Amino acid sequence: MEKIRIRIYPDGIEGFVEKDTTILEGLEKLGIKLETLCGGAGWCGQCIVKVNGALSEISSNEKSILSNEMLIDGYRLACQAVIKGNIDIEIPPQTRLYGNQILTSGVVIEKAKINPDVKTFRISLPIPSLEDQRADLERLEDAIGSKISVSNLDILKKLPIILRESNFDIEAVIYRSELIDIRKPISKPLYGVAIDIGTTTIVAYLLDLKKGEIDVASSMNPQAKRGADVISRIDYSIRGGLQELRDLVVGEINRLIEELCNRQSIEPTDIYDITIVGNTTMMHIFLGVPPNYIAVSPYIPTFTRSMLLEASQLGIHINPRGKCYVLPNISGYVGADTVGVVLATRLYKGDGVKLALDIGTNGEMVLKDGDKLFACSTAAGPAFEGANITYGMRGAKGAIDHINIDDGKINVHVIGDVQPIGICGSGLLDAIAVMIELGILDETGKIVYPEGELIKDLIRKTENGLEFLLRANGGEILINQRDVRELQLAKSAIRAGIEILLEETGRDYKDIDTVYLAGAFGTYLNPESAVKIGLLPPIPIGRIYSVGNAAGEGAKLALLDKDQRRIAEEISKNISYIELSSRRDFQEKFMEFMYFETKR
Amino acid sequence: MEKIRIRIYPDGIEGFVEKDTTILEGLEKLGIKLETLCGGAGWCGQCIVKVNGALSEISSNEKSILSNEMLIDGYRLACQAVIKGNIDIEIPPQTRLYGNQILTSGVVIEKAKINPDVKTFRISLPIPSLEDQRADLERLEDAIGSKISVSNLDILKKLPIILRESNFDIEAVIYRSELIDIRKPISKPLYGVAIDIGTTTIVAYLLDLKKGEIDVASSMNPQAKRGADVISRIDYSIRGGLQELRDLVVGEINRLIEELCNRQSIEPTDIYDITIVGNTTMMHIFLGVPPNYIAVSPYIPTFTRSMLLEASQLGIHINPRGKCYVLPNISGYVGADTVGVVLATRLYKGDGVKLALDIGTNGEMVLKDGDKLFACSTAAGPAFEGANITYGMRGAKGAIDHINIDDGKINVHVIGDVQPIGICGSGLLDAIAVMIELGILDETGKIVYPEGELIKDLIRKTENGLEFLLRANGGEILINQRDVRELQLAKSAIRAGIEILLEETGRDYKDIDTVYLAGAFGTYLNPESAVKIGLLPPIPIGRIYSVGNAAGEGAKLALLDKDQRRIAEEISKNISYIELSSRRDFQEKFMEFMYFETKR
Repeated sequence: MEKIRIRIYPDGIEGFVEKDTTILEGLEKLGIKLETLCGGAGWCGQCIVKVNGALSEISSNEKSILSNEMLIDGYRLACQAVIKGNIDIEIPPQTRLYGNQILTSGVVIEKAKINPDVKTFRISLPIPSLEDQRADLERLEDAIGSKISVSNLDILKKLPIILRESNFDIEAVIYRSELIDIRKPISKPLYGVAIDIGTTTIVAYLLDLKKGEIDVASSMNPQAKRGADVISRIDYSIRGGLQELRDLVVGEINRLIEELCNRQSIEPTDIYDITIVGNTTMMHIFLGVPPNYIAVSPYIPTFTRSMLLEASQLGIHINPRGKCYVLPNISGYVGADTVGVVLATRLYKGDGVKLALDIGTNGEMVLKDGDKLFACSTAAGPAFEGANITYGMRGAKGAIDHINIDDGKINVHVIGDVQPIGICGSGLLDAIAVMIELGILDETGKIVYPEGELIKDLIRKTENGLEFLLRANGGEILINQRDVRELQLAKSAIRAGIEILLEETGRDYKDIDTVYLAGAFGTYLNPESAVKIGLLPPIPIGRIYSVGNAAGEGAKLALLDKDQRRIAEEISKNISYIELSSRRDFQEKFMEFMYFETKR
Repeated sequence: MEKIRIRIYPDGIEGFVEKDTTILEGLEKLGIKLETLCGGAGWCGQCIVKVNGALSEISSNEKSILSNEMLIDGYRLACQAVIKGNIDIEIPPQTRLYGNQILTSGVVIEKAKINPDVKTFRISLPIPSLEDQRADLERLEDAIGSKISVSNLDILKKLPIILRESNFDIEAVIYRSELIDIRKPISKPLYGVAIDIGTTTIVAYLLDLKKGEIDVASSMNPQAKRGADVISRIDYSIRGGLQELRDLVVGEINRLIEELCNRQSIEPTDIYDITIVGNTTMMHIFLGVPPNYIAVSPYIPTFTRSMLLEASQLGIHINPRGKCYVLPNISGYVGADTVGVVLATRLYKGDGVKLALDIGTNGEMVLKDGDKLFACSTAAGPAFEGANITYGMRGAKGAIDHINIDDGKINVHVIGDVQPIGICGSGLLDAIAVMIELGILDETGKIVYPEGELIKDLIRKTENGLEFLLRANGGEILINQRDVRELQLAKSAIRAGIEILLEETGRDYKDIDTVYLAGAFGTYLNPESAVKIGLLPPIPIGRIYSVGNAAGEGAKLALLDKDQRRIAEEISKNISYIELSSRRDFQEKFMEFMYFETKR
């Protein structure tokens, strides 16, 4: 194979790759991994690089994603452009950033104890003799000093052979009390993977079970092509698609595990344990269990408890005797992901009143008061994810994500610092807060035309009525009356849920000591805006914390520390779930919090 | 299909069957089941009937098994002869008996308690509502009132559907605490199968787990074609044949289960539990676990403990979520079959000194003294099974099985009352006892030529030395010096084992209150002869009991009563196994008991 020299800027790395590999592959060989959502299929536009040198022709994918100006300037998609001769590659900072668009990191509230369910034991067994005729398995059990069980015969099939090949000096891998592997005594590491199956994205964390996290990989949930939200997935399941949805998510998990293994040069058979979080529907689909009755009142799941299963029974490609622990759910609409959030935020611990909020299409919330936990879920609608908003989009390149008024001037920030193509949830929240601040919204949410020079330029009157203009980098994005109404519905649903939980405990919002905001939207939103538009009660900003992907953090905790599984199960059993759909007081509060608090 | 009248004698039954069915099938349709070893393949000769009427031509199998005289008299093999017109069938008594040539019945020492590990619960669940949103599984658990687990997802896959189809009124099948099936509430029976895997034969008992035994089926162990004894099977395993041996036994077990299901018109999916006994090597091969190191000193098995496995993991065709409990073994040469004997004889219970003996190729024995159990195994050799004896054969048609001296006359009994073609273990034992009685054997086992008219006719001098003649039904069978030597080796090995066990407990044979003889040889032997030749110590005959297939009885007990499993596990753990091969005192006793106690 012909070798070609590539130089990478601004890294200053120089190396050789084979001709006819894509830039993406070439960069990876030299140790630079660009995160993509589409896995290199060419549609996500996350791997833009600037190149000087001999490449394949511009593909149709590149033409549809890159502007003519960019193409002329030498910008290409790394996954599409094939290396034909010596080239210089410049990786723009925003390309390197894209990997973080799927929120993989969480804030560690308290360091995890390392005490996993799977452990290794290095043992030298006494050699059998006519005076000591114990069977191999019983000999091993005696040496370990506690009862061990065997549920998979494969281990018994290799036990006598390995024992004698290694002269009775071996390493046993024990899961709880079950013998799941026998290895020759070369201290290999012991790995586990924690997985967060979101409706939209999947994140997989690779952990060394003696040390902690070592890598993370993420991708879009491929089920998305069968429906964007849980209701449409359930619907697809009922119409015979359950197995297909299950195969999609299992396939993607296997791909992520393979990616992590390749990247870290480890064997999948050295992974012995998996933990999984996700919403209740995702947990049902992952196990191939019908989620049918979650969709209709009274919203009954098939199971809520935790499940401990053979990874091989689930088709997960790790050690064939490895295990998979699915964290418990709470109800049809409060899933294992919320249990993960409660674990990661240690919400169940300590004194005081604490609130955890995970806002996506649904808003799940847990209020802790003393030793009691209360949970509910509200169908907030997907406005915060950019859906049903005229210029709405997810938090990706070209999205307005933050707006503030500084010294009388409106600052609009666009992800990737490019011309804006839309607005994401955190941007929308800021936009509404700014509109209230400037008097463009009245108490009922109606767009009005107030006095003032600054304002004049920000409002346009069209046939749709008045619209609010956001300008940045030479482009503009509009917020219209319908968008404001969507946001009002979403924010009042969540706020009403918070108020019901407070009412249930007899508390006032002033009693809340801490608010944890989990998930992507919770991480990127501006707490001041959240309070200003009434999404959150008027809590001092200093008490509000973003905790990132706390659900994933919870899965990691349950992987590293078996006690966290017991705690998760206790949370699932003892939490009081409040069903909002049947409550008249929820409807009243939902109406009440539709309004804004505007300046008199 | 043309219907043909058949009459059956001496039953006096008359009925109609389809033309072109075999006699075997025709009889079965009219409720008469002839047991065969070959499953109707035509080689075992167990289904001989006498027929008058239109049949198919005589097959080559029939020609090789039946003599010309028999064929002329109208004898046919029921499995070979095809019905072509109206016929009269006479079933000779010995044909009906053959079914018992594989010992399937055991003596019940104490009636089994019916308290199986698998139970059904008929439950009406409260209908879900917004006020009661418990998940299906948790709702079921609450209704049952105790914790239930799920390890097979198939049950969760059908749970929500069946619950709603039957309006939340269902029958749950629970194994220990595991939910293994959900059925509509039509009280179907609950079945189990107890299996005894012998080196030579396999016996399967069908049990109604609410009532008790309902049927039994047996066949030859098809592994026999890969070696007659455990050592040759282990050898075949080591040379790569383990999987083949396992497939053979599993296939035969599935065939027996199918036969039982067909005969009783039940569905295999209504069988939820299986218990298995057999020697340690058979248990290893059944599970596909290498028995390799049992064959060579220090004779180490891979496992001795009991195993609880999914029947589906083992390829056993019962309910796919059914279980298979393999009883525990004691050592490489004292297996789960011996544990079954201890269970069935209740040897572990009560006061006094009790001895259980199971004699085949090996003699396994257990001595109970107070609350202590001692076991050992001696390689008796296959003499008692007819091997290595000039005219030796298994206890089948044509075998001399009993000999006695009555009023100065020697009576020789042949199985099937035909001309003898050989001698089986119980016959050999009697023959040696008679030889001692008549003074034909001296103390050392040498055949001598004593005085007396009766004797003269019974001894023949050939180039091989003196031979003892047994005459019956116009035929004769010879016992020569080599045969006597084989028997001496076998009996002294067993007797020396008994003596070592007595020595171990500090007991004398006079202390033995009860001797249980298990297995086919133990059932058919004459205890007086056993004592006379010194196989057993001189214990009063009244204390010696034959208990039939006690190993199979033990498997049945473990199927019907879960407490028996706990007892079996305690027996396996607490029994003291005495390894004889390394003991000089065993060698001494082995020499000592080679001799006979002859009259002075």
